[in-house]
Amino acid sequence: MKKFLLNETRMPRSWYNVVADLPGAMSPVLHPGTLKPIGPADLAPLFPMSIIEQEVSTDRFISIPDEVIDAYRLFRPTPLVRAERLEKYLGTPAHIYFKNESVSPAGSHKPNTAIPQAFYNRREGIRKLVTETGAGQWGSALSFAGQLFGLEVEIYMVAVSYQQKPYRRSLMRAWGGSVFSSPSNRTASGRAVLAEHPDSPGSLGIAISEAVERAASDPQAHYALGSVLNHVCLHQTVIGIEAREQMAEAGEYPDVVIGCVGGGSNFAGLAFPFVPDKLDGKPVRLMAVEPASCPTLTKGVFAYDYGDIARLTPVVEMYTLGHDYVPPAIHAGGLRYHGDSPLVSRLVHDGIAEARAYPQNACFEAAILFARTEGILPAPESSHAIRAAIDEALIAKAEGKPRTILFNLSGHGHFDLSAYDDYLDGKLHDVEYPAEAVAAAMLRLPRIEGAPASESPAGG
Amino acid sequence: MKKFLLNETRMPRSWYNVVADLPGAMSPVLHPGTLKPIGPADLAPLFPMSIIEQEVSTDRFISIPDEVIDAYRLFRPTPLVRAERLEKYLGTPAHIYFKNESVSPAGSHKPNTAIPQAFYNRREGIRKLVTETGAGQWGSALSFAGQLFGLEVEIYMVAVSYQQKPYRRSLMRAWGGSVFSSPSNRTASGRAVLAEHPDSPGSLGIAISEAVERAASDPQAHYALGSVLNHVCLHQTVIGIEAREQMAEAGEYPDVVIGCVGGGSNFAGLAFPFVPDKLDGKPVRLMAVEPASCPTLTKGVFAYDYGDIARLTPVVEMYTLGHDYVPPAIHAGGLRYHGDSPLVSRLVHDGIAEARAYPQNACFEAAILFARTEGILPAPESSHAIRAAIDEALIAKAEGKPRTILFNLSGHGHFDLSAYDDYLDGKLHDVEYPAEAVAAAMLRLPRIEGAPASESPAGG
Repeated sequence: MKKFLLNETRMPRSWYNVVADLPGAMSPVLHPGTLKPIGPADLAPLFPMSIIEQEVSTDRFISIPDEVIDAYRLFRPTPLVRAERLEKYLGTPAHIYFKNESVSPAGSHKPNTAIPQAFYNRREGIRKLVTETGAGQWGSALSFAGQLFGLEVEIYMVAVSYQQKPYRRSLMRAWGGSVFSSPSNRTASGRAVLAEHPDSPGSLGIAISEAVERAASDPQAHYALGSVLNHVCLHQTVIGIEAREQMAEAGEYPDVVIGCVGGGSNFAGLAFPFVPDKLDGKPVRLMAVEPASCPTLTKGVFAYDYGDIARLTPVVEMYTLGHDYVPPAIHAGGLRYHGDSPLVSRLVHDGIAEARAYPQNACFEAAILFARTEGILPAPESSHAIRAAIDEALIAKAEGKPRTILFNLSGHGHFDLSAYDDYLDGKLHDVEYPAEAVAAAMLRLPRIEGAPASESPAGG
Repeated sequence: MKKFLLNETRMPRSWYNVVADLPGAMSPVLHPGTLKPIGPADLAPLFPMSIIEQEVSTDRFISIPDEVIDAYRLFRPTPLVRAERLEKYLGTPAHIYFKNESVSPAGSHKPNTAIPQAFYNRREGIRKLVTETGAGQWGSALSFAGQLFGLEVEIYMVAVSYQQKPYRRSLMRAWGGSVFSSPSNRTASGRAVLAEHPDSPGSLGIAISEAVERAASDPQAHYALGSVLNHVCLHQTVIGIEAREQMAEAGEYPDVVIGCVGGGSNFAGLAFPFVPDKLDGKPVRLMAVEPASCPTLTKGVFAYDYGDIARLTPVVEMYTLGHDYVPPAIHAGGLRYHGDSPLVSRLVHDGIAEARAYPQNACFEAAILFARTEGILPAPESSHAIRAAIDEALIAKAEGKPRTILFNLSGHGHFDLSAYDDYLDGKLHDVEYPAEAVAAAMLRLPRIEGAPASESPAGG
């Protein structure tokens, strides 16, 4: 047996909230202006109350609304697959399983949170969602979800991606989303940038500012975020809850659970449901994998920082390379984030999860090997998890011992093929970790009264 | 329940050969040079003996080799899905089901035959497969399959697609295929074209000539074809065998079974396994849907004709618009074929299947509606089947009667997004049926001694 296809009647009815099981409380989220703890009222212009409640909830399980389950059924449960051909190629005694989140219509795990976000907003009377997107994974997922619940979706897409990834843009349009190149003339922040740099290639920081400005200025509109925050990680736990059941069907339990990390939500989704076992003493390792050029968890500091370069977002405690650190342009655009989910950061900080970083050529090598054995062409982001899974399998081979490996195939690479061309043509270069730029950015972390001093890196 | 995911232990162990159940024998295949019946020895330079045997077999069931089943398991069984959101949007009493072949790694049904073709060739000692590809669906499926069995794959891609669809080309390369723009300097036929037209955009006819020339001149190489022939339709019947079982699980039986038709293999795959029921008196309709600009089944003649413009391929009895009819450039590139599978042609000719033609804007309209309700963005080819399914559902609504509709979602549109942009921008024009060009092409059908005169069109 190779594929474990959970019957849809066994789809999870609740999300799992890891906050309930953490050994201590999370540090409070701070207002970007006052640097004092933020309250629900501060978030109300941007998010519906159900989402705000989830963001701060300490309940262990949170029910998934029927309407969300019904939409999840378009692609969930997703298959758990044993990568037998990859195992055979590697000649490893390890068993390699992957959870295939690439089967969603948008081609990634992002709809797992886009759908409930669209649902809750619509239920509270909102007519429009505004967001930013970099490579386009999140923008397309939100367009798809907005369409399901009759919401308009307005997307600010980083200008350089808008030009270089026309297919992602077309996908958003096909699902009814309105996509604008950012910086745009539609917002004060966009116009300010354009006045100074008419040819600005844009950035996520600028696009976030545009989306937040649009959402805040329209009482019928809200903002939506695709990673980092607690409620996003919460929604993604459907991945891991399904995977635990499917692994049980396969008669196995993972020794190591692996996910790539940008903002952290796909790793959170797969790994969080294994945290209670780990805290109960099961020897399961939870491994977050990031790019060597943006090594937030492995080389960053655990400190309070802004979520964006423009310092418009709340200030949270997390691993960070500094909010104005701009990661080098690598093809795994979804992993180019200076910070990380506070929950994932906390797990790494507390030693419950571990982190590892890889350069991009090693990841593309793993991706091609995966495509040629298991068929599926992975997203450059997901290839980081594949690289780690292969390395774990090779260690098992060297030791001559069994090992059960589970990783998250967070998405497919159908819209990233120019990156594969670059790799196959030998044009892809590994980017050195820009230590000086990070050190400089660290100097600009916010200084919080009464907060403990920043701690040093989690690992090497 | 919405999705019916056959357990992989219930995957078909045999393909179904419709030839066994046809009321009469098929007309013989003729040699393109002599116009006399062709024998296995004539085909041996191009195909392995197992494939030649399948091409002429009259056995009802043909066992699927274990190695092929094992490779099918990478994506089969594919889901049968009830399109409840589409039904609800249409307000129809009809139940609409689709078989989702877009879940294969290559994104279409093509691997169903690419895999056994690669397997049989490898088993008979062949080291390389050569083929042509237009839009790239077939070339990518064969690259994927060749990789699984350690075969080199060499692909001649029509020059204009090579330039306009770089992502499809990249996908073939990622799976290890070598892709050449056709006409190329690698063959005598390619060089001859280039000598006269250095900027030739290429055509499937030229690409076929190049692939056949390369395969015939290398004793370790064979040729592979992705549609039309009997063995290709045979391999595709896994689709319909699974679908029958899944419909039974859903507690339903289709009133109408729908597939789009270019060469005919995806329609054949879904519909052929329902032919025995139909011949037993069940009132199931089998509907082949083609583009109005290339209306082979609805406006062509049932006659002997060549499979290609260069008259290199065997001559078969089929519906045809004339082998030198060049269909207008529409976005459903996979449906631009002057002829059709002899088996599908025969079923239509005998009244066992029916045919219908649609212009492309009506199909894109259906595709967008499908994407916005069911999530999946379909291939332009598949959108023809969706259009017909929607129309059947609307007829059921007008009549106020139930109807069970089953169609084949033969592939996704991730590599066809520029076509969607054209549609959404209102730039897509319906192409008139070029009756004069067809009439002219008809004059050039081969004249076969002793063959009955051509018959007039099958339908309107």
